[in-house]
Amino acid sequence: MFISFEGIDGSGKSTQARLLAEALRAEGREVVLTREPGGSPGAEEIRRLVLEGDPDRWSAETEILLFTAARRDHLEKTIRPALAAGKIVISDRFADSTRLYQGITRGDLRAVVDRLHDLMIGIEPDLTLIIDMDPAEGLARALGRQGTEERFESFGEGLQVRMRDGFLALAREFPTRCVVVDGARTADVVAADAARITRDRLMRTRDGALGA
Amino acid sequence: MFISFEGIDGSGKSTQARLLAEALRAEGREVVLTREPGGSPGAEEIRRLVLEGDPDRWSAETEILLFTAARRDHLEKTIRPALAAGKIVISDRFADSTRLYQGITRGDLRAVVDRLHDLMIGIEPDLTLIIDMDPAEGLARALGRQGTEERFESFGEGLQVRMRDGFLALAREFPTRCVVVDGARTADVVAADAARITRDRLMRTRDGALGA
Repeated sequence: MFISFEGIDGSGKSTQARLLAEALRAEGREVVLTREPGGSPGAEEIRRLVLEGDPDRWSAETEILLFTAARRDHLEKTIRPALAAGKIVISDRFADSTRLYQGITRGDLRAVVDRLHDLMIGIEPDLTLIIDMDPAEGLARALGRQGTEERFESFGEGLQVRMRDGFLALAREFPTRCVVVDGARTADVVAADAARITRDRLMRTRDGALGA
Repeated sequence: MFISFEGIDGSGKSTQARLLAEALRAEGREVVLTREPGGSPGAEEIRRLVLEGDPDRWSAETEILLFTAARRDHLEKTIRPALAAGKIVISDRFADSTRLYQGITRGDLRAVVDRLHDLMIGIEPDLTLIIDMDPAEGLARALGRQGTEERFESFGEGLQVRMRDGFLALAREFPTRCVVVDGARTADVVAADAARITRDRLMRTRDGALGA
């Protein structure tokens, strides 16, 4: 089973990805916790190329190509081998982040992102947990963090608002795969919710497999 | 006018690109001499990522994405601005190299290369000079050079033979754009030939423009 976490900066998705991995491991399941961009040695190198330096150094189109290259490497080196070994893969971000960030800053590029995805990636998570969060609250949390990778967080609240709307729109676009989780509650409550949704999905997947 | 040089390793295409730039500058033309992978600061960084390190670190698919990202940056930052300013652009390699190297090592990928090119690049040179060279001779020349970027030159003569055949096949596939030049002669003789072909093409392009 392949699970991705998505949401605006400061929504708590990285924390939630980690907490879900811990909860599933506590049940004896084998879990690979990974992230994007990155998640494999090569993809982490591409991540540094994209996220460090002048925010305007790459055009949106070049950035999409670099993210897709990183995703392809991540898929080959980390995700597919783990799934083939029967492990659960939890990724902090996956293709939806590219659909969102690029599609929102340059709406005409959503089709390009989708065509590249179909051509070079061709896989979607079985379950995407979208951690929903008030944009102002998310931005305040994100700005409170340390970090050199401010590439995407320098766009401010206007972008955060459009991002949140974008994630909710993606949840409507992919209703089978996406579940929206209210991220305004404490981390433990959100985590319990995420674990419950995941267990339901695992059970349904297993039943589906048995029924097939 | 956008001119590319292509050919197997050791064919002398880099020397010929430089000699053509010098010949055109001597006639008072403004020329931008560039190369792939690379040709812009960002693309040179991607070049390093692809060409350095373990030859097997990237799959063919990831490599195609990285080369396309580098080409997009090269196109935006170097080629298009120069053409817009009325300059002649001479590139040591362009998309044909990707079509060849990838298509030959993994024949099933030629269609992927083409679809990525159509989607993200969408431009071909006005003139491509393919410097033809006996594969054994080219390999001996290439191995005689110093250099840390042995990524593609480590495949040996078998690949060189298929590369040469591949470039000749490309010349047949794009007969309007591609001209095959015999690279077995001295550099000066080859250069004179390349300059003559380029002047003919420049004149025809100008006449075409005047006639339009």
